[in-house]
Amino acid sequence: MSTLIGLQCHVCHTAFAAEATYVCDQCFGPLEPVYDYDKARATFTRENIASRPRNLWRYRELLPITGEPLTGFGSGFTPLIPAPRLAARLGVRELYVKDDGVNHPTLSYKDRVVSVAATRAVELGFTVFGCASTGNLGNSVAAHASRLGLRCFVFIPDDLEPYKVLGSAIYHPTLLAVRGNYDDVNRLCTQVADKHGWGFANINLRSYYAEGAKTMGFEIVEQLGWRFPKHVVSPVAGGTLLPRIFRGFRELHQLGLGEGDLPKMYGAQAAGSAPVIRALHQGIDYPDPVKPDTIAKSIAIGNPADGFQVIEVLKESGGWGEMVTDEEILDGINLLAETEGIFTEPAGGTTIAVTRKLIEQERIPRNESIVMCITGNGYKTADIMTGRVTRAIPISRSLEDVDAYLAGTLAGVGGEQA
Amino acid sequence: MSTLIGLQCHVCHTAFAAEATYVCDQCFGPLEPVYDYDKARATFTRENIASRPRNLWRYRELLPITGEPLTGFGSGFTPLIPAPRLAARLGVRELYVKDDGVNHPTLSYKDRVVSVAATRAVELGFTVFGCASTGNLGNSVAAHASRLGLRCFVFIPDDLEPYKVLGSAIYHPTLLAVRGNYDDVNRLCTQVADKHGWGFANINLRSYYAEGAKTMGFEIVEQLGWRFPKHVVSPVAGGTLLPRIFRGFRELHQLGLGEGDLPKMYGAQAAGSAPVIRALHQGIDYPDPVKPDTIAKSIAIGNPADGFQVIEVLKESGGWGEMVTDEEILDGINLLAETEGIFTEPAGGTTIAVTRKLIEQERIPRNESIVMCITGNGYKTADIMTGRVTRAIPISRSLEDVDAYLAGTLAGVGGEQA
Repeated sequence: MSTLIGLQCHVCHTAFAAEATYVCDQCFGPLEPVYDYDKARATFTRENIASRPRNLWRYRELLPITGEPLTGFGSGFTPLIPAPRLAARLGVRELYVKDDGVNHPTLSYKDRVVSVAATRAVELGFTVFGCASTGNLGNSVAAHASRLGLRCFVFIPDDLEPYKVLGSAIYHPTLLAVRGNYDDVNRLCTQVADKHGWGFANINLRSYYAEGAKTMGFEIVEQLGWRFPKHVVSPVAGGTLLPRIFRGFRELHQLGLGEGDLPKMYGAQAAGSAPVIRALHQGIDYPDPVKPDTIAKSIAIGNPADGFQVIEVLKESGGWGEMVTDEEILDGINLLAETEGIFTEPAGGTTIAVTRKLIEQERIPRNESIVMCITGNGYKTADIMTGRVTRAIPISRSLEDVDAYLAGTLAGVGGEQA
Repeated sequence: MSTLIGLQCHVCHTAFAAEATYVCDQCFGPLEPVYDYDKARATFTRENIASRPRNLWRYRELLPITGEPLTGFGSGFTPLIPAPRLAARLGVRELYVKDDGVNHPTLSYKDRVVSVAATRAVELGFTVFGCASTGNLGNSVAAHASRLGLRCFVFIPDDLEPYKVLGSAIYHPTLLAVRGNYDDVNRLCTQVADKHGWGFANINLRSYYAEGAKTMGFEIVEQLGWRFPKHVVSPVAGGTLLPRIFRGFRELHQLGLGEGDLPKMYGAQAAGSAPVIRALHQGIDYPDPVKPDTIAKSIAIGNPADGFQVIEVLKESGGWGEMVTDEEILDGINLLAETEGIFTEPAGGTTIAVTRKLIEQERIPRNESIVMCITGNGYKTADIMTGRVTRAIPISRSLEDVDAYLAGTLAGVGGEQA
């Protein structure tokens, strides 16, 4: 069933074998898989896809593995939720949340890319699987390594949120906390991968890993009844996700599986780590690295590997991008929770806040369909909201106490059964 | 499309209108919905169900609402995951995890029951929605109340895990922390519901609420290709879930939609809060209340409302039940994480540990299919595992440091690419 032909350079199109290589030796461009689309077309149909299990492998003709999937049987196919109350607050007509905060098993979009990278790691003969991570990726790599019985190394910056650290440690990888930021961790892992020949999901397996992110795009279209939305807002960190959502859209378009025009894509970054948005606003194609300083640690990447691809897609699709302050991010988390009952992490708060900003700027029109990509779960970083939510009110166990509380502070609130 | 006829007493079968009543005025038995199964049969078919959206409302003919669903459009239809590595560790042939730890939006099975209760609350005219909660229920009630714009009151014991408290507070309910345990909270809420006429999911709306739990049973059978498993292990707290999973099985059996015999049901409790298991082992039908003392706070209910129904089902189905210590619960969490890459909360650890115990006791045979119901997510209570996982190892950002670490403690581990 495999349609994988090989890899090719995104920039100069030089062809490579489908091995653990990720950078073009001609021009240093990133490598990406090439498929036999004619072969894929025979089985990659709406009917076939609809009949398959609800995980990311339902799109397997366009995923870069050669054998059977080995993990991720519960990953992907997350809910696409209409968000009418948030739409009303933002003054728009048709708004959806694509919620990878409930992705199985580790509650972020990383379970998509890691399912693909881990399967491909085994196919390529790796017995050690690892990553450089801001938290969510480490959780996912460690979990899928457990599932496959692979030896696992997770490298993290030493200032990560404690629950994200525990969320990797629980799967018993070797967990190395590097004194430095994510970009330092990533540089170190590149050296380790080269020297020890280990498979790193987001480094030497990156060409395969990134393809898993296309499935978020495939799902959005399938879940809208094979219709393209008009506008899609995605957070940007290393630059994996946004260009691959669009690549997925393009493939569906090319295969005649999506109704309508290709969507406009919008990037969202935290102002404290916004190399891509700054470059976009300055008209530069290749982002200058920055030193991240934001509460949105899961997207605090100052030197994004695929930053230029994000800018390419924002321009090509006719979209745009914005950055928001940490205050606006926390407000965004609150806004999504109080309108739609969804608790997201700061990366999601960034997406919400940027969407609001782009609507206010009239970059995104109010009367067309909008999808916001929520990539991680707020329960992993809940303490960040400690000062922003109402504290629990201590009371005794007597009805009199409840009534006194109601009389004192909530008199006339009403709310009896109608 | 509604097939809801009314309520009837589980014990004496007295009929009641489908209102916010939950206790029989003749015998004090719990009330449960009655459906027109002949009407349901016309549309409740495998083909129709398969064609519907992937949420709990795909089974709506057998859910107790009269209008359209109002919330829960991403809730339910959680993954049923084969667990081959855990099966090997436990020495059994066919093992599955039903993982409600990734239920949308609040990561526990409560999103099923609350979706139904909240929809019914609106149908019955309530404008205030609340609950007595050990944490997960509060999270879910507050989230769905946000989605529906309902005023919300969540009552919790004052010793809850901080992330579970934040996990309700984020949706901005009125959050009342009662000095006492869950059973004290529940008693208080019963009085509040009576006096103020508010809709409490697990009190005066309990007859509707509990029916939502059937959908976990429906899904297990559908996801196994409309085949019944042989053995199902479920945690027991208030006693809502286990009897309703079985009620769902029975309804499918009655409608001819499941292949094979009805499964044997097994209950799992923490030894520090095991009124149902103690009663079962002593041959008593009605559990004596206990004072809970366990780290498994989400199932720390000493006086379970539906405890006798659990015992009824364990006996009728030919199953059994066991309790495990807090140590065994933490071991269970670790075991699931390191074999299958799934991080569950103590309630899930209880289910894993009890399953292991029942297999060792030969209560569950090794060569038949087993489903373990995982009802909540470990990322909400991650700090409980702090002392049980390997700590992150601090290193500098130099390759030499990594090599020194490997040389010092991991010499000969191998793992290079094969």
